[in-house]
Amino acid sequence: MRTINLLSLLLVLFLSHPSVAQDKDSTIIRNIYTYALEQGKAYEWLDYLSNKIGPRLSGSVGAEKAVNWAKAVMEDQKNGRVYLQEVMVPHWVRNDKEQLTVISSGKKTDLRICSLGGSIPTPPKGLKAQVVEVKSMDELKKLGAEKVRGKIVFYNVRMADKHIHTFDAYSESGKYRWAGAMNASKYGAVGSITRSLTLSLDDYPHTGAMGYSDTLPKIPACAVSTIGADKLSTILKENPSAEVELLMNCETLPDKLSYNVIAEIMGSQFPDEIIVVGGHLDAWDNGHGAHDDGAGCVQSMELLRAFRELKIQPKRTVRVVLFMNEENGLKGAKEYALKAKDAGENHIAAIESDAGGFTPHGFSYEKNDEGKINKFLSWKPLFKEYGLYDWFDGGGGADINQLKDQGTLLIGLSPDSQRYFDYHHAETDTFDKVNKRELNLGSAAMISLVYLLSEYGVK
Amino acid sequence: MRTINLLSLLLVLFLSHPSVAQDKDSTIIRNIYTYALEQGKAYEWLDYLSNKIGPRLSGSVGAEKAVNWAKAVMEDQKNGRVYLQEVMVPHWVRNDKEQLTVISSGKKTDLRICSLGGSIPTPPKGLKAQVVEVKSMDELKKLGAEKVRGKIVFYNVRMADKHIHTFDAYSESGKYRWAGAMNASKYGAVGSITRSLTLSLDDYPHTGAMGYSDTLPKIPACAVSTIGADKLSTILKENPSAEVELLMNCETLPDKLSYNVIAEIMGSQFPDEIIVVGGHLDAWDNGHGAHDDGAGCVQSMELLRAFRELKIQPKRTVRVVLFMNEENGLKGAKEYALKAKDAGENHIAAIESDAGGFTPHGFSYEKNDEGKINKFLSWKPLFKEYGLYDWFDGGGGADINQLKDQGTLLIGLSPDSQRYFDYHHAETDTFDKVNKRELNLGSAAMISLVYLLSEYGVK
Repeated sequence: MRTINLLSLLLVLFLSHPSVAQDKDSTIIRNIYTYALEQGKAYEWLDYLSNKIGPRLSGSVGAEKAVNWAKAVMEDQKNGRVYLQEVMVPHWVRNDKEQLTVISSGKKTDLRICSLGGSIPTPPKGLKAQVVEVKSMDELKKLGAEKVRGKIVFYNVRMADKHIHTFDAYSESGKYRWAGAMNASKYGAVGSITRSLTLSLDDYPHTGAMGYSDTLPKIPACAVSTIGADKLSTILKENPSAEVELLMNCETLPDKLSYNVIAEIMGSQFPDEIIVVGGHLDAWDNGHGAHDDGAGCVQSMELLRAFRELKIQPKRTVRVVLFMNEENGLKGAKEYALKAKDAGENHIAAIESDAGGFTPHGFSYEKNDEGKINKFLSWKPLFKEYGLYDWFDGGGGADINQLKDQGTLLIGLSPDSQRYFDYHHAETDTFDKVNKRELNLGSAAMISLVYLLSEYGVK
Repeated sequence: MRTINLLSLLLVLFLSHPSVAQDKDSTIIRNIYTYALEQGKAYEWLDYLSNKIGPRLSGSVGAEKAVNWAKAVMEDQKNGRVYLQEVMVPHWVRNDKEQLTVISSGKKTDLRICSLGGSIPTPPKGLKAQVVEVKSMDELKKLGAEKVRGKIVFYNVRMADKHIHTFDAYSESGKYRWAGAMNASKYGAVGSITRSLTLSLDDYPHTGAMGYSDTLPKIPACAVSTIGADKLSTILKENPSAEVELLMNCETLPDKLSYNVIAEIMGSQFPDEIIVVGGHLDAWDNGHGAHDDGAGCVQSMELLRAFRELKIQPKRTVRVVLFMNEENGLKGAKEYALKAKDAGENHIAAIESDAGGFTPHGFSYEKNDEGKINKFLSWKPLFKEYGLYDWFDGGGGADINQLKDQGTLLIGLSPDSQRYFDYHHAETDTFDKVNKRELNLGSAAMISLVYLLSEYGVK
């Protein structure tokens, strides 16, 4: 008998038994997928957000339009209360001058660059200096002030092709964009050029946020296309004393009032338990932010319509939150988390889609309360037939991470990552790069998970 | 004690224990992935095959060029013996006339069509007839000869969006292309128009093979773009007696000599056990066959270079086989299987990549010898970190299926299917639709599996 009991126990542990609840959940999830694939509006909305509004960096007219548009679309769904949450955001503008010319033995070569977000401009007439190419922060350190002072540092570090998840390559190389200028400044450099963070060899520069140290001189920072980086490197090999002329007129204006856009469906049984699902509404100014993160916004907005059409009344409160200013300050997410804390709200879980509108492969989560994570992981079998096999410890998302100290279960939608950095923060991040079905599968995955969270909570 | 023994047994059954062999295999597979992602040539080769050779339907000059090119590239790898295998193939040509004009109340509307592969032409001056729209074969049957005779049947059946694997939708709807004309002919129709088999709403007609019955009159058959299908349907709703003018001048010429292109690396220990890895070299004439199936060819060819660079000497014989005439006859695959049988060869396994050069999600297999399948499935844990989660009973591939009655384990590479039918058999199946990393991940998956098969066999 003991043997048989042990067997039963092991069977329960190792095999999944369909239960009545699981059958109901399976049906609802199937309905959500069918809804998203057959009737989803995310693609149509993304077309508008990308092609009619387009660039929408914090503080810009585009961001203002995006706020008004998202609010109106969510109100149109007539499912829950829609409101704006005020937040002061940085207001950096690129302006019209971004030029990098290499001069070697009298020959001039123009390379395609873009200013990094937050950079100071060059002097109005530009900056002329020799360039020192490095392949790592260590190499820069070894060169030291003697060889760097008065020059422009060129971080020519390729993102590593060998990774399977491209975000692993981005994590490795991100520091050359974020900390390139401040590290170069340590050794007296007058400017910083970073090889664009993309795995693609093309002529599109990729922007992104960069930071300064309060204790070091600020120097202008730009990114050069990967083709441009190869050209510059070739010229420097031929002529190490080649000079470049760098001209940028970007600037930081005073902070501006903007908004998180929020839609809330009150929970029917546990209204005080809140689930957030969202993305960020701001996007870099050089592209249309279709994948980053228009996709995450429209996938989240889809929940309002799906729940209405499928008559799903969540037991717990669900909030669709479109955060402002993820790209260069996270001010929206910080404000949201602060207000939640001040109000004593209980955010049981938050899901963010901010890795592109590609075929979802699973969910990543922030290692936190083990009980909550186990409950979340217990739903994995329900998603197998939809290709969501990969549930891994890999964080939630930059916006929702601000809720970390409130004990919230943090989850990120994890789509196929192969093409993401081809478009990320570049002028190529446009609507035509998004496949309708891939986008809709992402909506369905998110909405299904929110349904389960709202039905069962995380305890 | 019995309890503990049972526990041990169950642990062995349910948990995977890394062994020395697995460590070695893990390392080799990691090396194969790193090779493919960092140094793979598949993308460069596909560029040539798509952009320099392009259309290559059986019997065409393009097909001849593709044979010569593939042979030369494989010979360049200096890894194994390369040879051609003769096969007579059908020679159907589209020619230059493909016109469909709807005439309703004096107004003419041109719709984008293409002839289906194997169709007879219309009379030289075209065909003018009323159109009867149906949504299923059943509907056609119910209409019967009385309502169909002398008309053109319009199969306006949308591929179903709700499926997760798009091949499931293709399987459902494929009959309207393949058997549309012969079914319409049963009831005296004079032509057949099929809504293009794609999940996308666009203006590109998708071709593909169609068949005739020996006992029924042959009638011309074409596919109309999905936008065209919607337009035609709208016009017919307004005016059910609207007529169309259909003009096609495609024709079938005498069979032609062509070739399968084969590269063979002799096994060092078990040369008589043969593993095939391949795709098909022919492609429809309206596009460049980048995904279908240039991708499968270059992924298979990559094996020769990867094994050489990584110094992998297979214990069993590996053959890269680029089949001719998959699209409209399978003559290459049939010839290969016949010759293998006649020679008394032992094909232990065959892998085909013919579902596009997208991120691989797993392998499908043909349900066959359970022991072989279990051995194959035992390797699944080795592929988890590469995202190959989905190993399912779903067939091998049209070419390798010809080896089925020889007891061969048949496996298909199963990539993400969301975009495949956007390009399938259409002018949009071009090189720019292929992502380098996605293609390389497919190569790595195939090469890794061939390595395991060659190392361990299937017994």
